[in-house]
Amino acid sequence: MNQNRISRVLHNLSDLGLSQMLITDPMSIYYLTGEYVDPYERFYALYLDAEGRKVFFLNRLFPVPCDLPLQEVWLSDTDSVADALCRVIDPKRKLGVDKDIRARFLLPLMERGAASGFVNASIAVDLTRAVKDADEQEKMRRSSAINDAAMAQFKALIHDGVTEREVAAQIPGIYHRLGADGLSFPSIVSFGKNAADPHHSPDGTVVKEGDCVLFDVGCIAEGYCSDMTRTFFFRTVSQKHRAVYELVRKANEEAEEKIAPGRELRELDKTARDIITEAGCGKAFNHRLGHFIGLTDHEYGDVSSAFDWKIRPGMIFSIEPGVYLTGDMGVRIEDLNLVTEDGRETLNHYPKELEVI
Amino acid sequence: MNQNRISRVLHNLSDLGLSQMLITDPMSIYYLTGEYVDPYERFYALYLDAEGRKVFFLNRLFPVPCDLPLQEVWLSDTDSVADALCRVIDPKRKLGVDKDIRARFLLPLMERGAASGFVNASIAVDLTRAVKDADEQEKMRRSSAINDAAMAQFKALIHDGVTEREVAAQIPGIYHRLGADGLSFPSIVSFGKNAADPHHSPDGTVVKEGDCVLFDVGCIAEGYCSDMTRTFFFRTVSQKHRAVYELVRKANEEAEEKIAPGRELRELDKTARDIITEAGCGKAFNHRLGHFIGLTDHEYGDVSSAFDWKIRPGMIFSIEPGVYLTGDMGVRIEDLNLVTEDGRETLNHYPKELEVI
Repeated sequence: MNQNRISRVLHNLSDLGLSQMLITDPMSIYYLTGEYVDPYERFYALYLDAEGRKVFFLNRLFPVPCDLPLQEVWLSDTDSVADALCRVIDPKRKLGVDKDIRARFLLPLMERGAASGFVNASIAVDLTRAVKDADEQEKMRRSSAINDAAMAQFKALIHDGVTEREVAAQIPGIYHRLGADGLSFPSIVSFGKNAADPHHSPDGTVVKEGDCVLFDVGCIAEGYCSDMTRTFFFRTVSQKHRAVYELVRKANEEAEEKIAPGRELRELDKTARDIITEAGCGKAFNHRLGHFIGLTDHEYGDVSSAFDWKIRPGMIFSIEPGVYLTGDMGVRIEDLNLVTEDGRETLNHYPKELEVI
Repeated sequence: MNQNRISRVLHNLSDLGLSQMLITDPMSIYYLTGEYVDPYERFYALYLDAEGRKVFFLNRLFPVPCDLPLQEVWLSDTDSVADALCRVIDPKRKLGVDKDIRARFLLPLMERGAASGFVNASIAVDLTRAVKDADEQEKMRRSSAINDAAMAQFKALIHDGVTEREVAAQIPGIYHRLGADGLSFPSIVSFGKNAADPHHSPDGTVVKEGDCVLFDVGCIAEGYCSDMTRTFFFRTVSQKHRAVYELVRKANEEAEEKIAPGRELRELDKTARDIITEAGCGKAFNHRLGHFIGLTDHEYGDVSSAFDWKIRPGMIFSIEPGVYLTGDMGVRIEDLNLVTEDGRETLNHYPKELEVI
């Protein structure tokens, strides 16, 4: 149990005018209790209220130790989830739910009038998770340090005749030898025109002279995710591709320079997007500038024009501008950044100067 | 696009008194359209109505070919999902949603009055997926045939000094060499008392003489999942353990004998549970008898006392009774079964006689 985190959630909940909440995201439950379960299709939730009640809804099949300082409700496969919840939720008050609760659990509660209203109060948890405490910051640093060391080895896997899939297959072993516990997401290895799809899956494409070679990779270490992108060039680089690279690098670096508490996240997106748009490539940058990250590789929180959070110390998010030229190539440069009291600490240290490999 | 499957969904929807539906489960969308996307946190959905309208909600980041015979709505990271949905959903009619739509998409639709009501109509899709067509049946047969061949090789990995983790690490390679595309779920390899936890994760435990050795394993082949459990004994087996094994085997075999169209699924659960309960082990069988399976390893549909579907030809589900003795051992025996016009075809052929290895 992490009572400090739970108190922060309840404080945020109170700011929303709510006094009870049902949390179903298994990673949020891990964050608050220290227990992780993959519940598959079974119901798994933590109920909190402002009076300090904490009720853990579990299935008899989950191997969770029964010694946490909270009330446990053990369900079997034949029990009614709605019945169990109605015995706990106060029907006279609104219920906050997290953004991930699924219709099959939410709609029956609504039909039974389990609460006086149902509100997406996910931000109460998500904003807590978005601001990392000192222990989390240190784990994020170590995960990104492994990622920096790994990138140097990934680059060395590129040689004449190699395919994206052959390179990608060696990535888990390299992370393992560097002390990581796994991948934070399926690695992206893209050669040449494949890099124009930001989410390309490694396939049988063979690297050719003049190709860009994009790695978007991350590992999990001590439960925390890293995520970095670097784009290299194989043997040679054309003048046009060099110009695209330097444009993206400038967008990355200038956006990172702007990171400071009190600014809005969307200012960062605007900084990078304006640079790319003024160079005539605005349409070729077809995604948000960044995302939050921590226990999962994509946590709630965007660096985009549609997202209005102010930057706070302890937040960690990616800055990853890209330019994608269909049929030709793509460049993306991505670091993770930790917001400090007066600026930022970029967690990735792998160089960003253009490298021909 | 699979118009036949879409027609079956619309027929089931009409049986629920509904005429429009929003489907968000990426695997259900794949089942109906042939396109698969992992949308992460982004919105991805297929809207269907009784008048034949089909609208595909996509994000510009998804690499989906744009040549399907349906209306496409492409969203970017800064667009409002609710705005886009309100332009398509008929507000005068109720909207069916699938069981997996998340609160962050559902609650804004409710707040905006996007439909006259919101109903969990997942069964319209889930019942369609539960009844496999001939092509799916053939793929399920081939996936289980690989699983049978793999089990013979897994058994041969057990020798003095080996750990669960060392055995589990060799499973993906064996499946790959047999032609599978991956695992349908993380393999369970449990020695001795670890097998008393039905969902045990392989760890550093070394096998000992007299241990039970439980494999609960499955692969994906041509997109379809297999899933089988066998329990062996290392070097020797005690009289008590042999009796537990034969009890579970009897429960497995008698439940499978009962499979026939028109019966209720819960009769199968009762058959197995009564056998185990009469032998005094009822509390040691702490889960449902089985689950549906196909494109994912757990699909909607239970073989349990709480589930009231009648058995229909084309359904495929597991029969997997178990007895778990805390601190001592566990036995589970699981096959997949395809319902035929007059009985069942058990898709697993790996023998069930007790084997000391």
